[in-house]
Amino acid sequence: MKGFPAYAWLKGYNKDLLIADSIAAIIVTVMLIPQSLGYAMLAGVSPEVGLYASIIPLVAYALLGTSRTLSVGPVAVISLMTAVAVSDAVAQTGADYHEAAIVLALLSGCVLVVMGFLKFGFLANFLSHPVVSGFISASGILIALSQLKHLLGISAHGDTLPSLLLSLSQGMHALNLPTLAIGSFALILLIGCRRYLVRSLIAVGLSENAAGTISKAAPVLAILLTIVATIIFDLESLGVAIVGEVPRGLPTLVFPTIEWPLVKALLPAAILISVIGYVESISVGRTLGAKRRQRVDANQELVGLGAANLASALSSGFPVTGGFSRSVVNFDAGAQTGAASILTALGIALAALFLTPILYFLPKATLGATIIVAVMSLVDLGLVKKAWNYSRRDALALLGTLVGTLLVGVEAGVIIGVALSVILHLYHTSKPHTAIVGEVPGTEHFRNVDRHDVITDPKICSIRIDESLYFPNASYLEDLVYGAIAKNPDIKHIVLMCSAVNSIDMSALEALEMINSRLSELGLKLHLSEVKGPIMDALKRTDFLAHLSGSIYLSQHQAFNELRDDH
Amino acid sequence: MKGFPAYAWLKGYNKDLLIADSIAAIIVTVMLIPQSLGYAMLAGVSPEVGLYASIIPLVAYALLGTSRTLSVGPVAVISLMTAVAVSDAVAQTGADYHEAAIVLALLSGCVLVVMGFLKFGFLANFLSHPVVSGFISASGILIALSQLKHLLGISAHGDTLPSLLLSLSQGMHALNLPTLAIGSFALILLIGCRRYLVRSLIAVGLSENAAGTISKAAPVLAILLTIVATIIFDLESLGVAIVGEVPRGLPTLVFPTIEWPLVKALLPAAILISVIGYVESISVGRTLGAKRRQRVDANQELVGLGAANLASALSSGFPVTGGFSRSVVNFDAGAQTGAASILTALGIALAALFLTPILYFLPKATLGATIIVAVMSLVDLGLVKKAWNYSRRDALALLGTLVGTLLVGVEAGVIIGVALSVILHLYHTSKPHTAIVGEVPGTEHFRNVDRHDVITDPKICSIRIDESLYFPNASYLEDLVYGAIAKNPDIKHIVLMCSAVNSIDMSALEALEMINSRLSELGLKLHLSEVKGPIMDALKRTDFLAHLSGSIYLSQHQAFNELRDDH
Repeated sequence: MKGFPAYAWLKGYNKDLLIADSIAAIIVTVMLIPQSLGYAMLAGVSPEVGLYASIIPLVAYALLGTSRTLSVGPVAVISLMTAVAVSDAVAQTGADYHEAAIVLALLSGCVLVVMGFLKFGFLANFLSHPVVSGFISASGILIALSQLKHLLGISAHGDTLPSLLLSLSQGMHALNLPTLAIGSFALILLIGCRRYLVRSLIAVGLSENAAGTISKAAPVLAILLTIVATIIFDLESLGVAIVGEVPRGLPTLVFPTIEWPLVKALLPAAILISVIGYVESISVGRTLGAKRRQRVDANQELVGLGAANLASALSSGFPVTGGFSRSVVNFDAGAQTGAASILTALGIALAALFLTPILYFLPKATLGATIIVAVMSLVDLGLVKKAWNYSRRDALALLGTLVGTLLVGVEAGVIIGVALSVILHLYHTSKPHTAIVGEVPGTEHFRNVDRHDVITDPKICSIRIDESLYFPNASYLEDLVYGAIAKNPDIKHIVLMCSAVNSIDMSALEALEMINSRLSELGLKLHLSEVKGPIMDALKRTDFLAHLSGSIYLSQHQAFNELRDDH
Repeated sequence: MKGFPAYAWLKGYNKDLLIADSIAAIIVTVMLIPQSLGYAMLAGVSPEVGLYASIIPLVAYALLGTSRTLSVGPVAVISLMTAVAVSDAVAQTGADYHEAAIVLALLSGCVLVVMGFLKFGFLANFLSHPVVSGFISASGILIALSQLKHLLGISAHGDTLPSLLLSLSQGMHALNLPTLAIGSFALILLIGCRRYLVRSLIAVGLSENAAGTISKAAPVLAILLTIVATIIFDLESLGVAIVGEVPRGLPTLVFPTIEWPLVKALLPAAILISVIGYVESISVGRTLGAKRRQRVDANQELVGLGAANLASALSSGFPVTGGFSRSVVNFDAGAQTGAASILTALGIALAALFLTPILYFLPKATLGATIIVAVMSLVDLGLVKKAWNYSRRDALALLGTLVGTLLVGVEAGVIIGVALSVILHLYHTSKPHTAIVGEVPGTEHFRNVDRHDVITDPKICSIRIDESLYFPNASYLEDLVYGAIAKNPDIKHIVLMCSAVNSIDMSALEALEMINSRLSELGLKLHLSEVKGPIMDALKRTDFLAHLSGSIYLSQHQAFNELRDDH
């Protein structure tokens, strides 16, 4: 049913599916509770807001999204972007912090739904792979640094690497050793579980899948152990910051108050958050979908994620999207349909109703450690080297985004990255690869004279251009042809071999006309060969062909043979 | 001699060249006097400033520029941009208007020289042909409208089409009929000369060249006749605005006072003015150079134009560049070397010394009429239709620039145009032309199955992609392949024919890896054919080839034949 993708799995739902989905839901719930609390802290809102953002949004996505295994909810990068955007907007407008976070979720939801209805999913393509990688790695570093203060028991703030480092070093004098102890304990426990638990569990006979699943409960273990330690050693009186009172109960559905200055201050960030969230979500959704041959529809995904954000705004939450690690866990744990997400929402609702009292003594350092371990896997600096090996341009775009995000901030980082990748592309195509070609003996193929032993003719200069001809390289084309004839006074014919020319825009057409008239004045003829159909169609609508001193040949072979016989 | 291009013609200078250059100089001087006065009025500075900008700058360009026939000095579009930029900066900083114009020339000079030394001439390529055309047409309309007030004797101001029209309609109540009369007389005289004088002079036996040259004196005739009329009928007392006192003498060389707030306010405009001026100038310089096989060097041109602007700033002038119509006149009048420009400068200097007293009674309406007639030729709206016929993208870029310039202003117009042409290019390449291909019987050629009668095989799907693969089209590629296999369940092999793929970036490589692993899961093989050398080199540096389920074939013919035999 179009517009309601859940219909596809709802109509055939049965007991077997319910069992599979329930198991996955339990595992994801155990993973999502600490994450939702931690990411709420990262976003700068109270812990219960993290729980609120993990209930109705999951149901909304399950019904309207197209991926059956995507786990929607608070995620690290979006929470960081929320913190930056909301802090800025609050400073500008004096609005309430939590109110602003709700409005941001509302705006993100609207942006996503509108993009979905306008079929603007393709816009996400302009975030290239290196830009997304660089941005996520840099965000991971910023998030980990921003959480260090919780492990050190100091206060620090900042949106960029220099400001965070400065703030941390200035706060070090207030270092709280009990906090450091409990934080280090949680950190070592989590890293230890990640490194050794799976291996140990497999060694004692568990399946790889079961071992992996059990290890996902490590954050809950860390939370329980540090709560107990806080109570036993009365760590609160030693200066260890704890979560404190968390309101018990479910979110009440309220439509947020909308004030124009706040909307204006948040809208650019909402657009960026929407696009980044969508890109992160669709890539994991597609990867998982491909494994089970389930199609993920780009524009319906926008609607599904938009509905999740609108639901988050209505339940006093903050921006959400599909999370990478949680979705993989959901998938591996055997989730079959969106019902797994709906059951996860139920689990979080139960936690909000009954578990909040025990969170009172939870040290913030534990949540900080949970976040740090979660984002460690986002940072992949090895990719810089991999990109450098493959292409300098991609490596520069990656590095530019990485450095821009670290030094200027998350929003500027994305914009710098997109601008850089566009500029590098334009610059690259402004100096296209070209080759003087000759005929490979005994064939109809033409190859680079510098790389192959080929037949040429002193009166004919055949140039193959390996790029579409358009404004950035129009004058390069002129220089190329004039340079070629300057080197060789015997030339009578210039043949441009256009097998790799996919389009010719007006600027390039103008350049070709200039070349043609200049060559005519010098008594030389300009020919084209292997011009593609769509280009020929366009050229026929101009007077270029009427002015052309030479001919258009279907193949370079034909051009070479006819022009050789010509003189 | 590198860095001093004038050496090339100075070393062989002789009497014949001097005679030819002198004739051209006299004609250009006659044309430049009214233009320099008019463009000074357009730029918002006193008439003598126009003369000052037409003396030393010409000498500076003649010595350091590479075109021998380019006529540097005040031009319409740059004068309009100067008026807009200086008015804004004056409103922002409270600086003196003339001082600000001088600083703008200084900054433009610096920008151009720096661009020249950094060899940044290629930046001008990003102003595509449709953007430049649209901008110049829109500027012509804005200039003509801005001069209408002088013909109507009313006051009006505005930088955009709506503000100019509103301002003109509001001022109409103060319409001065004697001004309208003298303005209309000048306008009709100038248009009449342009339309009929050349034809009549040829009819009475003059050569086409001589007739054309004489007709260029029409503005001087209009000036003389209206001055006489103003004196005889005492038009000043009837409310006709006249030029008034014009200081007599040459400019004194003074280094402008530089104040940081003013520089900051003017710098963005200075960069735009430099780039636009350079593009206008180099295009006419190259066109004329091509006719006499003289090379125009892009980066040395930047230095030459930069020096001209620095010279203009030192002589209390405003931004200058190479003008289209004047350069053509200079060329047609037989100018052979830069000496023609130096002699023109001498002519303007003599005018500044001796002719200023007679300009006292010159009606501003005459100058307005001169400008209107001069810019009429800039407006070429027929080009929209021509562009539309050739390519929708180019037409949209042209229209966007045109409308943007008219409605938002000259600076915004250029930026809108460049952004639009880049976005249209990216959008176009995000949905590349592709074709399912088959073998043309009896050949090794592969063509579109929809256009040609070709041999295919139900187990092999060969797709030719007519575009480089990069981030905007990476996900399109995935959809394309998945769409192709969904339509045909018999397919066992997908061959991507890459003869028109000029590069593959990391985002596209990631997409290819995704496609490869997804096809593997479905039991299908992915092959590539006709991959270009540089791409193969890059792919070899990754593990893509190790993971590839199929093979890389040198030719599509080979791929097709081997895969057919395979099963």
